Amino acid sequence: MVDQSAVAFLQGLRSIVGVGHVITDQADMAGYLADWRGRYSGRARAVVLPLDTDQVAAVVRLCAGTGVPIVPQGGRTGLVMGSVPDTSGDAIVLSLRRLNRIRAIDPANRTMTVEAGCILADIQAAAAAAGMLYPLSLAAEGSCTIGGNLSTNAGGTAVLRYGNTRDLCLGLEVVNAQGDVWDGLRGLRKDNTGYALRDLFIGAEGTLGVITAAVLKLFPAPRGMLTALVALDSPRQALALLNLLQPRCGASLTGFELMSAVCMDLVAQQFPALPQPFAMRHPQYALVELSSNESEAHAQALLESGIGAALEDGIARDAVVATSSQQALSLWRLREHIPLAQAAAGKNIKHDISLPVSTIPDFIAHTDAALDRAFPGCVLVTFGHLGDGNLHYNVAPPAGVAHEAFLLEQDTVNRIVHDAVVAFAGSISAEHGIGALKRDELARTKSPVELGMMRAIKTALDPLGIMNPGKIL
Amino acid sequence: MVDQSAVAFLQGLRSIVGVGHVITDQADMAGYLADWRGRYSGRARAVVLPLDTDQVAAVVRLCAGTGVPIVPQGGRTGLVMGSVPDTSGDAIVLSLRRLNRIRAIDPANRTMTVEAGCILADIQAAAAAAGMLYPLSLAAEGSCTIGGNLSTNAGGTAVLRYGNTRDLCLGLEVVNAQGDVWDGLRGLRKDNTGYALRDLFIGAEGTLGVITAAVLKLFPAPRGMLTALVALDSPRQALALLNLLQPRCGASLTGFELMSAVCMDLVAQQFPALPQPFAMRHPQYALVELSSNESEAHAQALLESGIGAALEDGIARDAVVATSSQQALSLWRLREHIPLAQAAAGKNIKHDISLPVSTIPDFIAHTDAALDRAFPGCVLVTFGHLGDGNLHYNVAPPAGVAHEAFLLEQDTVNRIVHDAVVAFAGSISAEHGIGALKRDELARTKSPVELGMMRAIKTALDPLGIMNPGKIL
Repeated sequence: MVDQSAVAFLQGLRSIVGVGHVITDQADMAGYLADWRGRYSGRARAVVLPLDTDQVAAVVRLCAGTGVPIVPQGGRTGLVMGSVPDTSGDAIVLSLRRLNRIRAIDPANRTMTVEAGCILADIQAAAAAAGMLYPLSLAAEGSCTIGGNLSTNAGGTAVLRYGNTRDLCLGLEVVNAQGDVWDGLRGLRKDNTGYALRDLFIGAEGTLGVITAAVLKLFPAPRGMLTALVALDSPRQALALLNLLQPRCGASLTGFELMSAVCMDLVAQQFPALPQPFAMRHPQYALVELSSNESEAHAQALLESGIGAALEDGIARDAVVATSSQQALSLWRLREHIPLAQAAAGKNIKHDISLPVSTIPDFIAHTDAALDRAFPGCVLVTFGHLGDGNLHYNVAPPAGVAHEAFLLEQDTVNRIVHDAVVAFAGSISAEHGIGALKRDELARTKSPVELGMMRAIKTALDPLGIMNPGKIL
Repeated sequence: MVDQSAVAFLQGLRSIVGVGHVITDQADMAGYLADWRGRYSGRARAVVLPLDTDQVAAVVRLCAGTGVPIVPQGGRTGLVMGSVPDTSGDAIVLSLRRLNRIRAIDPANRTMTVEAGCILADIQAAAAAAGMLYPLSLAAEGSCTIGGNLSTNAGGTAVLRYGNTRDLCLGLEVVNAQGDVWDGLRGLRKDNTGYALRDLFIGAEGTLGVITAAVLKLFPAPRGMLTALVALDSPRQALALLNLLQPRCGASLTGFELMSAVCMDLVAQQFPALPQPFAMRHPQYALVELSSNESEAHAQALLESGIGAALEDGIARDAVVATSSQQALSLWRLREHIPLAQAAAGKNIKHDISLPVSTIPDFIAHTDAALDRAFPGCVLVTFGHLGDGNLHYNVAPPAGVAHEAFLLEQDTVNRIVHDAVVAFAGSISAEHGIGALKRDELARTKSPVELGMMRAIKTALDPLGIMNPGKIL
């Protein structure tokens, strides 16, 4: 675009969203251009903040007419550089933050219609105020937006019971790459009228269109939720515990997190004020959460009988069962402090992977060994949502090696881990998505047939290639 | 295709699948060409029965090379003419029945890998034999295949708890329209590596490719399941009952079916041997099913306390609570005999619709009245999966009007019902799909934006238009 048309383009944006909602000042744009981890910053022509769906559509039409790429952005809490522009400065950032209205709540249909810019925590709160539960829950919930959650098909800690974000959405409103509004805001549990466009836009990371609103599923709020921390010998015993509890508890088992001794050590070192539930160190820990729609007493009885059976069977070494919501919270706090403790202890090389649940013990043994051969003494900080087969499999340097120096080995470490993931029929991105960060690894690990179909769909829906270019594909 | 090349084409098919597995005799083909309801028969060049995925791929490549359309077929129990060819005789029918192996069961991952031609009941039985549950359940389960279930995203009676077929599948193997095999047989609960191809092929009714195998989700088998039949004043009270039970029972509420007095009358007339649970006639009935992973006593206690509360609150008029699995079965039998009783009483005009659950009472009142204005005295045979917002909303002739004569009014009746469905933000096909039968209604009721995106995807993945032409789009 030549200078003059660039000026006209900016004027066009301003006439759509208002002068105050087109940011071009470099300093003012900075907060929209940097990735969440602070390791990268892109450049943009402008940051545009539309107020509603019609403005989004008009902005997309203007961009389609002038060939300007669009980077949709929500709370900018993604971990794979999916919502920040490249360094060319060609694109606009389209921030959905002002589309933040809860349009409707239908208690008898158990649905809520929200705009893409709503903060996840606000949606949780609105559901709770209506006496219901929107179960999506993750660390960034105070900042992330539902549009970002949908675009990345976010996971979190409640997937075991409630599914991923895709499973928690019944309908979408989308501005497609032509700037047309697709009103797919259906609140239906069954609808077999054609292709699964909803599921296609969910998880597409803004590369096929811009999600502007969604109909979310709500659930009855549980009347009781309780947690236990179980000490275990090994990941294999953690799997045995999961398989003992699931048939007994069914959908009442709402959380099952694995944490290694290394993770608990890190938390204890970095956050000594947090109470440690066990006097001695154990190789592995499972955080188990039960929910009941009947009562807290019911949740507690289920939990105690399940843990009791695990102790009797020799599956568990020891266990602390919370007898109040307050105690349950303090056990969850240990789990939630792992990433913070990691960050405080120094950068490491992270992987967000998933595997068939049954293969996790073998995967950990195999991959720990492979890494130790390549980097003797390297430290595995392994935790995650075992119930979903999702591990945060993070690699810290051996004692005496500086974190920054070890980071230089990132590609080698990634390759060892991802090759093992492929060998075990897993996924190199369980819940974070691909973005720009894992694009090359995706190309390396996906079959040509699958990549070919993905490219065909991309070209079909976004023939100009203006929607979030350089992400995923 | 000229005669000579037609001969060469058939020889090509025979060389792929073997002479005995290419049927060209008209009489032998008949059973593959007629639709399930017996109202329509198409024509085909041949019926081809491959043995495995490689043979399917070779057949598709041969067809792609010669431009021959392919109609994939499973158990041929669909209700929308989705798996039978048109009358041109150009297409082949590709029957997946010989791909009927259960490839693997992974109890610790709670997954089963099956080929497309497996009969649903066989899959249920294999899951049960492994001590688990594959929850998809529907009337045709003894004949339908999982490939057909996946291609139509079948619903059934367990959607309230377990979701539709799409929700019950983790991975697919697909032969695409180019004859390439996509190995997406993943057994992962979380996988955010690109577009939702799995969800796109599911429900595409064979118009984008041929599903050859799938990884299915298994669940712990409940230890107790019990049922109650509740007599109610109105659909509004049925909705009140649903909203009373869901917060109390959560995921333990596994079934919630609505049946009108007309339905129960029909069953009583046609099947007088079935025991009728109530001495007097009530306007509406809800069949409520509870499942427990703990015990049958737990299911019973939950059910009794819920029904007790509904009676106390004046929501329910009366109720019969099964105290054994045998009693529960006999209550379900009433529900299952409604379609049979309808068929025995004479043909009527059927609609498989869904609505936001909250709007069902108003929808029924509005649409019953509209139909009565157009066809005074017409009889509404309304039943369905209220918990999913899915009604089988069937219209029988007024007393004295012959069924065959009334069927001539089908287009007018369809239009009244579907216009009401659109007005209430519902779906004209909840669980049966579109096929050839509802293609025109789809085109009439979907937005041009949505149809445009669907066509773009169809063209992208099947540029030659050989995959099940004339279905959906």
